[in-house]
This record gives sequence, structure tokens and C-alpha cells, in this order.
Amino acid sequence: MQIDIPAPAHDLAAALQQRIDAKTKPPGALGRLETLALQIGLAQHTLAPELRQPHIVVFAGDHGAAHAGVSAFPQDVTWQMVENFLAGGAAINVFSRQMELGLTVVDAGVAHDFGRRAGLVDAKIAPGTANYLEQPAMSAQQRDAALERGRGIAHALAANGCNCVGFGEMGIGNTAAASLLTHCLVGEAGGAGLATVTGRGTGLDDAGLARKRALLERALARGGRPSDPLAALAEYGGFEIAMMAGAMLGAAERRMLLLIDGFIVTSALLAAHALAPAILPYCVFAHRSQEPGHRVQLAHLGVEPLMELDLHLGEGTGAALAFPLVQAAVNFLAGMASFESAGVSGRR
Amino acid sequence: MQIDIPAPAHDLAAALQQRIDAKTKPPGALGRLETLALQIGLAQHTLAPELRQPHIVVFAGDHGAAHAGVSAFPQDVTWQMVENFLAGGAAINVFSRQMELGLTVVDAGVAHDFGRRAGLVDAKIAPGTANYLEQPAMSAQQRDAALERGRGIAHALAANGCNCVGFGEMGIGNTAAASLLTHCLVGEAGGAGLATVTGRGTGLDDAGLARKRALLERALARGGRPSDPLAALAEYGGFEIAMMAGAMLGAAERRMLLLIDGFIVTSALLAAHALAPAILPYCVFAHRSQEPGHRVQLAHLGVEPLMELDLHLGEGTGAALAFPLVQAAVNFLAGMASFESAGVSGRR
Repeated sequence: MQIDIPAPAHDLAAALQQRIDAKTKPPGALGRLETLALQIGLAQHTLAPELRQPHIVVFAGDHGAAHAGVSAFPQDVTWQMVENFLAGGAAINVFSRQMELGLTVVDAGVAHDFGRRAGLVDAKIAPGTANYLEQPAMSAQQRDAALERGRGIAHALAANGCNCVGFGEMGIGNTAAASLLTHCLVGEAGGAGLATVTGRGTGLDDAGLARKRALLERALARGGRPSDPLAALAEYGGFEIAMMAGAMLGAAERRMLLLIDGFIVTSALLAAHALAPAILPYCVFAHRSQEPGHRVQLAHLGVEPLMELDLHLGEGTGAALAFPLVQAAVNFLAGMASFESAGVSGRR
Repeated sequence: MQIDIPAPAHDLAAALQQRIDAKTKPPGALGRLETLALQIGLAQHTLAPELRQPHIVVFAGDHGAAHAGVSAFPQDVTWQMVENFLAGGAAINVFSRQMELGLTVVDAGVAHDFGRRAGLVDAKIAPGTANYLEQPAMSAQQRDAALERGRGIAHALAANGCNCVGFGEMGIGNTAAASLLTHCLVGEAGGAGLATVTGRGTGLDDAGLARKRALLERALARGGRPSDPLAALAEYGGFEIAMMAGAMLGAAERRMLLLIDGFIVTSALLAAHALAPAILPYCVFAHRSQEPGHRVQLAHLGVEPLMELDLHLGEGTGAALAFPLVQAAVNFLAGMASFESAGVSGRR
């Protein structure tokens, strides 16, 4: 896959900063919203950025290792939650409605036959990955197909006029996959020891957490610690994670703004970023999840998220909740008066 | 002033928690939003809380000490910013529009004659406080009038159907007043040494900050360190701060939800809380401001704000920006399916 991410318009930085500083507020008084406004203007190559048809895409997939006991919930919850998304009853539905975000659910590889369903994109690679305790989670062909389908989904969103996409996921067992990917792509030296980046997921107790860590050690003993993103995705990835990574790359190719949710979404970004570091200026980090590995991922990328609300739900809920802040950054730049236009005195 | 704040409905706590835990998400996965939903249900005495006609009220007032050089901006900026609010060009206008919040501006004591103006509540106590470097900022009568007028404003909002009010302020010199109030009401033992709680406000440089601290030391040498909230308000308060304190008390009397903004708003809450500690369960703390004294105030109250965005603008901007999170807490409780209703399997 040849990825071509354009650079932000760094030549506009001074003019954008001037526009921000002319607004009727002390310099810097809007804190993170000011750096966000600058980032979005640069990404969109304009002094007057806007968010068009903002959208959440939730990628769902099953994991062969789920049957081995890496999650507190049974695997059926993946397809049951997809049904919940389609019926409008999940947290991401509630928050997308509130924030007026479009919502698309993608079957990247759920172990269930949904048939043709309104609101569900059928991009299924296979009904769940293989069990990485026994063999690689997916073949190179499957991985490449997942990346390409994700990229196509992002390109289609952009073609429909969307320039801001939040990423979400659903997949019983996918915090385990995210832990393995983070361990491989960040490494012990980056603070991503397996124990550090393996958390309770949907709510394992102490014994469950110990079992999960032991299982993941076994997986590593079989599959090794590939630091190459493509190899790591094939070895341990979920279809939803690989497809998200492809969608992130496709979105950055179109200079869309990417709203990055929690631990699993960021594991997809680690892969995308390793493939194309130029993706980073297009990413807004919504929140710091309670899942301990998320902190390690964010530190590795050298970024600070907008919020810390002890969320650990996934589905893109953090991205949806952060959206009003992103909109506010664009809005203050568009809607606030300047000292001059409002006749307000400057500093003495 | 006889304040009568009812208690939250603690007897509903177990039923509310059960309702939260039945939603299709792992227990606790919505983090701070779950504790917020619980708090709001208890405050509203219901298992089905809702936010009605949410509103921002910005209290504006001038400070006699502003002429002595406690701010980076000239005093005229207070009335000029009120004009900016009325024209819709300030940050709080932009954010209130975005979040669909009502916005009322109150002239609590601006040193300017606005005449009768649409959208401006004339509650002026006097055209600015006296200079606390020379005499108490206000008389006991003025303070009591400010408290009562604020209380009346909150009661009127409640009578119009509003049950959620965010507090904002405008007043050149009011971070200095807030520093003095925090120093008096929290005390050195609470970590509120004058140097600790005196910050750069709208953007003082090092020399300006040193001058501000020296001036505030002089004020304390004249007026002392009253730990009584009524005495401290009269000695150092602004009319906008005293009126906000009254409005907070009045809002809690009506069991409204109070969205607390930054350093100056929290200084008003310190006074209100000292007068009636029962106010606290009705308060939602929007953000931790960059103004250093805010951290001390929040620690004194034993609370953790929702966001930390390095804001230091005032006007109620942090309260407005946090509103979608408060709405999301109410919405997930109202709108999410339960495991049972959605047919999703529970933990194994």
C-alpha cells in the first residue's frame, strides 16, 4: 500500500496565530483550544477552518483468542453489541445523536452473519481472526485486505464531504490484541512491558488479569515481538484494528481530522503511525483512558489528550465526547470578535 | 440572609446506581460521567434526571483597585467586554450558541452607564467597588444587597424553568480580589499563601506579577485576613463576586445544578460554601484553570474538575465547554439500552 499523506500548511502558522491572538481574550487564554484551532487550520490549509459532516466510524471484529479467556465477557457480545448499535441503544449512539455526528458501523470481521442491514457496512474479512495462541491472527493477504478496505471507507467518507472522523471499535478480546500490538510497536524500552500495557479491559478481576497476562506471554512465546507494524498486525491484530489503521491512513491522505479514542483505537494508530509518521498532525487525541497501556501509547507518540474522564468503554465514545471541544476551537476562530472590531482596548 | 438548601435524595442512590449499571457497558466504563449521572439524579430527586433550559449568567463588576495596577488591562475593558457580550462577539457568546445555552449578562457594578439594554440585567450596586488598598471594597449594606440580588436572579431563573446554571464573570482586577478572598477563606494552613494564590490573571509579566503581589500584601496590611465569608466579601470582594455567591446560594436552594467555572467563580463559591456547606452536592466543577490559585480552591473543597484545558479566560467559558459532558451524563442514563432490553449477554 502506497500511502501519500500531504503536509500541513506550515506557511500559514504565523497568520493563523495572529488571527487567534486578535480575538477578544488575553493571549493564550483559551489554552488547548487555541493550539487545536492552529492545528486544524494547518491541517485544512486555511485561516478559516470548518468541520463538515463529522462522523464516527465503529469497526467491529472478533478475536480467535477470545475463547481462551482474555475477556470478562463472552464472544457473542461483539455481535450483540453491533445489533445494539444498529438499534440505537449503545453509548456511542447516545453521544453521536447528542453531538450530531454521523455514525457508521463496519463489520470488519465479526463471527456472526448479519445479512444485509441498513447502517452496517459489510467489510468482513473473515468471521473472526485465528487464535494467536496457536497461529498468526491473520494472513498477510487478510491484513492487506483489511488495510485497503479501511482506506477505501475513509476515502468514501471524504468523497461524501466529511472532513472530520472519529474512530471507535467493538470486539470482545480486543484490549488483549491492543496490548500485544503496543508491546511490539512501542517495546520494553518505550515503557511498554507486557505487564504494564495489559489491563483489565471490560473488567477482569485480579485472577482474570493474571490469566490474561499469562496467555499473552504464551502468545509472544509463539509469535515473537515483531516491531514491524505489518508483521505485528498479522501476528496479533484484529480485523477491526487493521481496518481502522487503514482508515486512519486513508483519512490523513485526504487531510481529514482524526479523532482518536482510547487504548484500542490508539493501538491501530501506532501501526498507522509506524507506516506513515506524517499522520500525526491530523490526529486529535480525545481522552486518556483508564486502561493503563493508553498512557504508554500517548507518551510514545508524544501527545497530550484533551480530556481524562476515567473512560474505558471504547466504541468511539471518548472521540464523540471530545467533539464539542474540537468544534469550539473552530467556532471561536470563526465567531469571536477581534479587539479592533469590538472596540475593546488592548493591554496597557 | 436565611439560606435553606435541601439535601439531595440520598435514598435514591442504590436505585440510581442499579440503573447506571444495567446499561450496555462494563460497570464503571463511563467513568466520571457515571458519578455525574448519580450526582444529578440525587440533586434532582429522580431516577430520570433532565437538564431544562440550561443557562449561563455572567456577572460583571469593576474594582477600585484596578487603577492601582493589579491587571494587565485598563479598567475600561470591563464595560467594553460587556458591550462585546451584548453584541455576541465574545468567547462566551460563541460557546453558549454552540452548546445551546441561554446567556444573561448582569451588571453587578460596572463603572459605566449602559442605559437600558436588551439582554443586560441592571443590578448595579455602585459603579465599581472602593479601592481596598484604602478602605473596604464595599459596605455591609452593599454586600448584602449584592447577595440578595444574586439570589433573586437565581430564583427568577428557576421560576422560568431553568434547572442548570453556569456561572461566569467579567471584571478587570477580579483575579486580584479572588486571590485575596481565597487567601482569607482557605488560609495559609490550607495552602493558600498569598504568593501561591496570586497569579498572572489576564497576562501579567514577571514585574507585573511582583507588583500585584506587593499591592495585595498592602491590602492585607490594611484590611487583615478575615476568615468570615461576609467580612472577607466586604473587605475585598467585587460586586460581581458577591452577587454570584448569592446567586449560587439561591440556585442551590432551588436544587439547580451549578456549573462552576474557574478561579474567580470558585472564589465566589468559597464564600457561598462557607455560608452554606450544603451547596456542594449541587456543584459540578467544569475545569481546572491555569490560574494557580484555582488548584488550591479545588483542593480545599475536595473536588476534582471534569477537564483541564489550560483555560484562563473567565466569562463562564469553562462552564459552557463542560456542558456537553453534563448533558452526556443525563443522556446516557435516559437513552442507553440495558443488557436486558438489548439482549446483550452479561459477564461470564
